[in-house]
Amino acid sequence: MNEAWRGFKGTHWLDDVNVRDFIQNNYTPYDGDESFLAGPTEATDKLWGKLQELQKQEREKGGVLECETEVVSSLTAYGPGYIDESMKDLEQIVGLQTDKPLKRAFMPYGGIKMAEEAAETYGYKVNEKFHKIFTEYHKTHNQAVFDAYTPEMRAARHSHIVTGLPDTYGRGRIVGDYRRVALYGIDYLIKKKQEDFNNCGDGTMLDHIIRQREEISEQIRALKGMKEMAAVYGFDISQPAKNAKEAVQWLYFGYLAAIKTQNGAAMSVGRVSTFLDIYIERDIKEGTLTESQAQELIDHMTMKFRMVKFARIPSYNNLFSGDPVWATLEVGGLGMDGRHMVTKNDFRFLHTLENMGPSPEPNLTVLYTSKLPATFKKYAAKISVTTSSIQYENDDVMRPIWGDDYSICCCVSATQTGKEMQFFGARANLAKCLLYAINGGKDEKFLTKDGKHMQVGPEMAPITSDVLDYDEVMHKYDIMMDWLAGLYVNILNLIQYMHDKYYYEAAEMALIDTNVRRTFATGIAGFSHVVDSLSAIKYAKVSTVRDESGLVIDYKVEGDFPRYGNDDERADEIAVWLLKTFMKKIEKHHTYRDSEPTTSILTITSNVVYGKATGATPDGRPAFASFAPGASPSYGAEKNGLLSSLNSVAKIPYEYALDGISNTQTMNPNALGHDDEERANKLVNVLDGYFNQGAHHLNVNVFGKEKLIDAMEHPEKPEYANFTIRVSGYAVKFINLTKEQQLDVIARTCHTAL
Amino acid sequence: MNEAWRGFKGTHWLDDVNVRDFIQNNYTPYDGDESFLAGPTEATDKLWGKLQELQKQEREKGGVLECETEVVSSLTAYGPGYIDESMKDLEQIVGLQTDKPLKRAFMPYGGIKMAEEAAETYGYKVNEKFHKIFTEYHKTHNQAVFDAYTPEMRAARHSHIVTGLPDTYGRGRIVGDYRRVALYGIDYLIKKKQEDFNNCGDGTMLDHIIRQREEISEQIRALKGMKEMAAVYGFDISQPAKNAKEAVQWLYFGYLAAIKTQNGAAMSVGRVSTFLDIYIERDIKEGTLTESQAQELIDHMTMKFRMVKFARIPSYNNLFSGDPVWATLEVGGLGMDGRHMVTKNDFRFLHTLENMGPSPEPNLTVLYTSKLPATFKKYAAKISVTTSSIQYENDDVMRPIWGDDYSICCCVSATQTGKEMQFFGARANLAKCLLYAINGGKDEKFLTKDGKHMQVGPEMAPITSDVLDYDEVMHKYDIMMDWLAGLYVNILNLIQYMHDKYYYEAAEMALIDTNVRRTFATGIAGFSHVVDSLSAIKYAKVSTVRDESGLVIDYKVEGDFPRYGNDDERADEIAVWLLKTFMKKIEKHHTYRDSEPTTSILTITSNVVYGKATGATPDGRPAFASFAPGASPSYGAEKNGLLSSLNSVAKIPYEYALDGISNTQTMNPNALGHDDEERANKLVNVLDGYFNQGAHHLNVNVFGKEKLIDAMEHPEKPEYANFTIRVSGYAVKFINLTKEQQLDVIARTCHTAL
Repeated sequence: MNEAWRGFKGTHWLDDVNVRDFIQNNYTPYDGDESFLAGPTEATDKLWGKLQELQKQEREKGGVLECETEVVSSLTAYGPGYIDESMKDLEQIVGLQTDKPLKRAFMPYGGIKMAEEAAETYGYKVNEKFHKIFTEYHKTHNQAVFDAYTPEMRAARHSHIVTGLPDTYGRGRIVGDYRRVALYGIDYLIKKKQEDFNNCGDGTMLDHIIRQREEISEQIRALKGMKEMAAVYGFDISQPAKNAKEAVQWLYFGYLAAIKTQNGAAMSVGRVSTFLDIYIERDIKEGTLTESQAQELIDHMTMKFRMVKFARIPSYNNLFSGDPVWATLEVGGLGMDGRHMVTKNDFRFLHTLENMGPSPEPNLTVLYTSKLPATFKKYAAKISVTTSSIQYENDDVMRPIWGDDYSICCCVSATQTGKEMQFFGARANLAKCLLYAINGGKDEKFLTKDGKHMQVGPEMAPITSDVLDYDEVMHKYDIMMDWLAGLYVNILNLIQYMHDKYYYEAAEMALIDTNVRRTFATGIAGFSHVVDSLSAIKYAKVSTVRDESGLVIDYKVEGDFPRYGNDDERADEIAVWLLKTFMKKIEKHHTYRDSEPTTSILTITSNVVYGKATGATPDGRPAFASFAPGASPSYGAEKNGLLSSLNSVAKIPYEYALDGISNTQTMNPNALGHDDEERANKLVNVLDGYFNQGAHHLNVNVFGKEKLIDAMEHPEKPEYANFTIRVSGYAVKFINLTKEQQLDVIARTCHTAL
Repeated sequence: MNEAWRGFKGTHWLDDVNVRDFIQNNYTPYDGDESFLAGPTEATDKLWGKLQELQKQEREKGGVLECETEVVSSLTAYGPGYIDESMKDLEQIVGLQTDKPLKRAFMPYGGIKMAEEAAETYGYKVNEKFHKIFTEYHKTHNQAVFDAYTPEMRAARHSHIVTGLPDTYGRGRIVGDYRRVALYGIDYLIKKKQEDFNNCGDGTMLDHIIRQREEISEQIRALKGMKEMAAVYGFDISQPAKNAKEAVQWLYFGYLAAIKTQNGAAMSVGRVSTFLDIYIERDIKEGTLTESQAQELIDHMTMKFRMVKFARIPSYNNLFSGDPVWATLEVGGLGMDGRHMVTKNDFRFLHTLENMGPSPEPNLTVLYTSKLPATFKKYAAKISVTTSSIQYENDDVMRPIWGDDYSICCCVSATQTGKEMQFFGARANLAKCLLYAINGGKDEKFLTKDGKHMQVGPEMAPITSDVLDYDEVMHKYDIMMDWLAGLYVNILNLIQYMHDKYYYEAAEMALIDTNVRRTFATGIAGFSHVVDSLSAIKYAKVSTVRDESGLVIDYKVEGDFPRYGNDDERADEIAVWLLKTFMKKIEKHHTYRDSEPTTSILTITSNVVYGKATGATPDGRPAFASFAPGASPSYGAEKNGLLSSLNSVAKIPYEYALDGISNTQTMNPNALGHDDEERANKLVNVLDGYFNQGAHHLNVNVFGKEKLIDAMEHPEKPEYANFTIRVSGYAVKFINLTKEQQLDVIARTCHTAL
């Protein structure tokens, strides 16, 4: 047995790559409170101080500190880089994406034009030779996708009925099992992948076998590259990590490999906390590590996660505002055997928000169940109350489906760690789809060159009545959703095919089982507006307002109608119907590589952009106004307080939206209690109640509107430098949002009472 | 109607791309003799003189005049190039692969190492930046294939049981319908491809639909590139050619696009002669062209075909000796309506061998049938007698299968022009396979590191008897051929997949129908040796000679046995059995893109290399001696004269070897007659007799052994500068062969009597 594994128990993980088995055999559940935690070390303070300086400079320079223009990012493109060369000995965990902190790498494989434009946006000019190389010699993902798109697909993309597609950059959302680097070392992983290569196919070279054989070869190449990358920093990661410091460092190198080679919107870290705790516990027992040193390791790794950056273009920033990377990282959860999986390390990760202040990244996610230790639930709630930086997801609904070793691969989407990958697929705009059903596939906003409404959907007979009839609308909506689901799935089939062909995630897939489960993630935008619109048509009187061409451009609603977000069965049953109907339509279609289709109700910050592209809806939402984010009820719809709102969202069946149901809520501190202690207790009650009903996710913000308005008007105030809020599925520094998005956040319901 | 089409008849070709219909409606069969032909113009003499000088310099420099090191070949990589800048106005037809005559382009997409090694072989060093670009940024075909090969495939490749695989360079053998450029102009072709793109798939994005959509996009890009390429020379090829000169030039630009972007072993020109005659006839009728000018156009285009060059590595040259490119070009043939398709232009193409002397390229091929006009048959035979530069293929067996507009896409393989493409697949060594059947899959030549015979084939029980039993050998050979056929097809599946992925022939496929027929060409090497070996085992007594490990390394034959090549049914029926059996085994397997499997019995000059890798065979062939080429009988086997030999080969059923059955024969001039007139007549008789039996192909050489020996010993003699001979499927300048291959050619049977 390898000396690196001294004291570890279990057998399965020794025979095969099986990190879950290792964890289950070796972790130490912790039921105590946070009193054991250590504050920041001097090194942490110094390094974090330096990093804050750099972040300030970055903001002053318009959001980007520096862009690479001469080097194509790769595992081995750079020599070592440090937060501060003069303090490099203080860094317990090392490794940057480029040679300098916060410098953004040049990543052309997703699309050379995007990479060039991103640099140019911030005043940098990529060396011209790369244009020729990535146009003439090597085709990019983006070029390939556009080579194959149909005119219908281009039109749907143009009109934003489907949008946010990963066709100009990496698709992301793949979480390598970075823990494997620490537990096994690279050489063993290469050996196992070589075995997989030898066992890939029975010799009959069908296309999919050839593709997989080539992919495994690329994975092995990437593993070798990771060793080289680590060697640059003076580490040999060919063998297993021998102690906690190495374990944290090895694991981080695995993640670093991912963010050096891919620029997906979401580049998540995964479920690493309990795993690392095992090494820390052993070192502490062996007397080679103190709690302060342990916290320092976690703080320094977390600092690295706070530094992950990609060069983005303005249209991307409009969709995903505030420079997020979804370095999502989980704590909490239960094991399949019923033991909770909370360790001291889960406290340490949450504690980073105290040691180094609030931060949007890593996207800290509590896998929640009321069965978690009360001490931990309360500590997490306390961190929510004081930092608004964490989110909660229901382990009780996810565990039966994904087991007890899943990671969150973006905002809220679960994925089995090391066993699964996801084809990320953005969102279909079901609100616009409803307008197409009414207007016979004609777009209410986008015009042809000669000024006519673009025909984007099928040329169905439009609704010509003055007052909308529920049955007629539902009939036509059903047909239009059929069309949209098919088109959407096929756009994604094409994108995923080209991504595999031109921008394969070798480094991440090298840390995932070769026999991988693939999910095909679709998504829904405009959810609450469709629900409320259909409710209005059903329960009130909705008349159409037409422009001179006869196209409906607005709606007059007379009478009251139930709205989603008030625990009113009449509206909520429409919500359930909408999700089930769309998901079933998605499932009808062929999906790339026989992946399993899923859907989500989450919109990130793209609810603003989607809304902007979508005309007035029958629920009374004005033309081009923002959508409510994710599965959240519409702004102003919630009339019965927070708990009623949560009850509505909790009714949405997770099994029909396995990619996640995102709900973002803001509570005024006073609604929760008079002091943080009381607020934390109350919040735990809210969470227990919400999740025990089977709800999937909650973003918790605890602040008042007045703080947001002040921060918008006075972003220079030091207290707002790190002021972090939860938006749909991630956290963001409020002052990094566009004005438009700040206004959108301010417009959202802030519950002043439960 | 376009002015460019004045006087042309027919309608179908006006509605759709249909060159065959255009030809059938407009060509003028010619029954006269060669007396109308014109000699070389002054310009032709000057340019050909210059080119011969360059060819001399090329030989003196070791076979390559210059290699590109700074520019990646593409349609638009170069400005204009001419044979001689100072004489450029003399060139009626312009366009070089690079900027200088005979300079070899840098073509890295098939494999960067191959491209670098080829340059280095001749003292050039490719700019180092390309190594990084084509290793790190863009993967090459070669890298991809080796990434996916199984160990078994590598072993089979190493032992040469399969060999000549196109896994380091372009696969070639795709003949674009270059005539389309002349008849339609590029803009119309783009329009049609755009229609195909719009009609590609029903919206369901299955992998093969996505692939095809991307391919059509690449084809359209290539068509646009061709226009740019022509514009560099001052021509606008967007519209149809208006006269013969433009037609020749436009067509050549189409071909030039192919040889600037692909370096396949075979880059054939296709069936262009009758097509071009239509334009020449019209110009002559309109009084705008004289016969001398017409011949000059053909001479100058032919000169360009004589200049096509690729940078090759030594191991390639060993397989395909003498720098061939298979710029194969057809004359003759019948139409489906029974009219012969011989035009004056067919005479003009053959006449280039007189105007500019013999030459291996273009690889002139007469589509033969006894129904061709006697005048033409005799003229072709005369050219054979005086130049040994042309080959004959049986139009009567090919026409029923491929129609009347097929081209020869390599040595001898027919392909429907513009409607078909071929996945080229080199050859399986059936002689070595027989040895594996005897030795239980162990290789008789190649050893493991510890000196044991490599286990390449399946670990079957070997034959242990001293005397070989026919039934036992046949039983084990059947099993071993099963294995080989499966492995071979799957190697090819993998290669073709990667070639499509990394080195797609956009320019050639742009000139072929989108809805293309695909054939999957396999091949057989060692044919005659297997036939004779099995005959020996059956009809004589074959004892085994074993080495210390017990492996059979030689055979003792006692008694006589019938041999293939003597019109002896006992041997010839084994030949037919062998072909049918192997072909049926090939057909069992999945073939890439559902292509139609075919096979060939042709070996180019690789018979030497294959033989070198293969131990002694039971027919008495010594270990590592050359094989007989293609379907030719073994050296020394033919005891009954030329006609008996031809009768044997003629029995091989073409329908089982649709990729071709190559037969190469050498006749002493004296065997044919006392003067060239008599020899030509006699040769026509031989051809009529041979092809009327259903034989497929004949390479005709007319010279004596003494000439070969003299040429080998005195290559400096001026009369040998262009001394051309036919080898298996192509022609070659004898002095450009390696000494080993020269000796092989000399060893072949030279029939001194019919």
